[in-house]
Amino acid sequence: MNLIILFKSDFIDGTKRVRIQDHRLEHVRKVNRSSVGDELRVGLINGNIGVGRITLINEKRVEMDVVLDRKPPAPLPVTLVLAMVRPRVFKRVITQASAMGIKRIIVINSYRVEKSFWKSPALEKESLTKYLIMGLEQGQDTIVPEVLIRPLFKPFVEDELSDIIKGTLTFVAHPYASEQCPYNIGQPVTLAVGPEGGFIPYEIKKLIECGFTAVHMGERTLHVESAISGMVSRLM
Amino acid sequence: MNLIILFKSDFIDGTKRVRIQDHRLEHVRKVNRSSVGDELRVGLINGNIGVGRITLINEKRVEMDVVLDRKPPAPLPVTLVLAMVRPRVFKRVITQASAMGIKRIIVINSYRVEKSFWKSPALEKESLTKYLIMGLEQGQDTIVPEVLIRPLFKPFVEDELSDIIKGTLTFVAHPYASEQCPYNIGQPVTLAVGPEGGFIPYEIKKLIECGFTAVHMGERTLHVESAISGMVSRLM
Repeated sequence: MNLIILFKSDFIDGTKRVRIQDHRLEHVRKVNRSSVGDELRVGLINGNIGVGRITLINEKRVEMDVVLDRKPPAPLPVTLVLAMVRPRVFKRVITQASAMGIKRIIVINSYRVEKSFWKSPALEKESLTKYLIMGLEQGQDTIVPEVLIRPLFKPFVEDELSDIIKGTLTFVAHPYASEQCPYNIGQPVTLAVGPEGGFIPYEIKKLIECGFTAVHMGERTLHVESAISGMVSRLM
Repeated sequence: MNLIILFKSDFIDGTKRVRIQDHRLEHVRKVNRSSVGDELRVGLINGNIGVGRITLINEKRVEMDVVLDRKPPAPLPVTLVLAMVRPRVFKRVITQASAMGIKRIIVINSYRVEKSFWKSPALEKESLTKYLIMGLEQGQDTIVPEVLIRPLFKPFVEDELSDIIKGTLTFVAHPYASEQCPYNIGQPVTLAVGPEGGFIPYEIKKLIECGFTAVHMGERTLHVESAISGMVSRLM
């Protein structure tokens, strides 16, 4: 937790003083081992970032005087279209995408996605928000990404995707592509990443019809997490 | 497991037929759901890759006729100098580095590494080999990376590091660096990545004295795993 996310409900005195009693208190006490007078990086959810100076700390609560005088980092101009993955991995991918500054994530179906994954509690709004905020705490950002869930591949690609990709360069990760993923393209991107095992040829074909370029990242098959951070870091 | 790693001891008939009875059998039966006649990607540890055709499969064993006629992918010319991390993360980082094709990993100390991490069973040879092979199975490679453990920062940097980095461009990930991590440098690299929280200024200074350039990956603080896959994918 490199930045403590604050919520409106934490403020006890207008916009200056906060009181925190949940897992964030635990973190401040046990990881930061902070005491009165210490300053911590804080940020208001979907708002500014700044510093909180501890005025009181005990087992039950921490209180801080906060100054929120800086804008959060600029969003990364990347839309991630992600085939649903194993829930344990999904959690890490969502947190990672949020930490990297991606602000729009669209979770889609693919032939190789196990049906049971769609029943995972990881897709519920409360879980998603938790993973996204963990990412913001890591990346020192406050702007909560938007996550869309689209469990039908064909209607999504045929009816929605062409609007979503407007104004962006579009790439789909595909181990068998002939083209290598380019570097430092300096433009907004929509990046589609398949499940473990990749998109099937029909899905690649539909994405290419929609305007996507299939690109590879070398001979090796990467985990979904490595593929996302690798491609985003190379493209942007 | 995109490729089944074979060991010399698996061969029951010269260099052509293997019998497998361990977790790989479970994978072939339950994940691949293979039957007689199916072909699977296989590779001999530190040797060639190819195809295994199943000649027998039951609850107790799978037998395959194998042809190992292709070289594994070329090594990625990257040496990773990695500060020790939380054992749970360490396992994933080692597996990821192996999957990406990194062939030399040096695990070092840093001020912000918790002493208890050095007692982790994850650092024992048997565990390391397991994580490295999981990476090879993912990346479809056979060449086991070398892992060196160097639990003293100063003697390592002062006495060993200058030999290790010979012939490579050298970068250390540092959130407060003024220079951005470059793209597609087309040369062998030594990449140093600190613990969560980063290297301390003294350590950065020592690495710079040794010839390293401190580079950042943007305003956001990334997890160690994202930093490694991101920087390697950008540099190479």
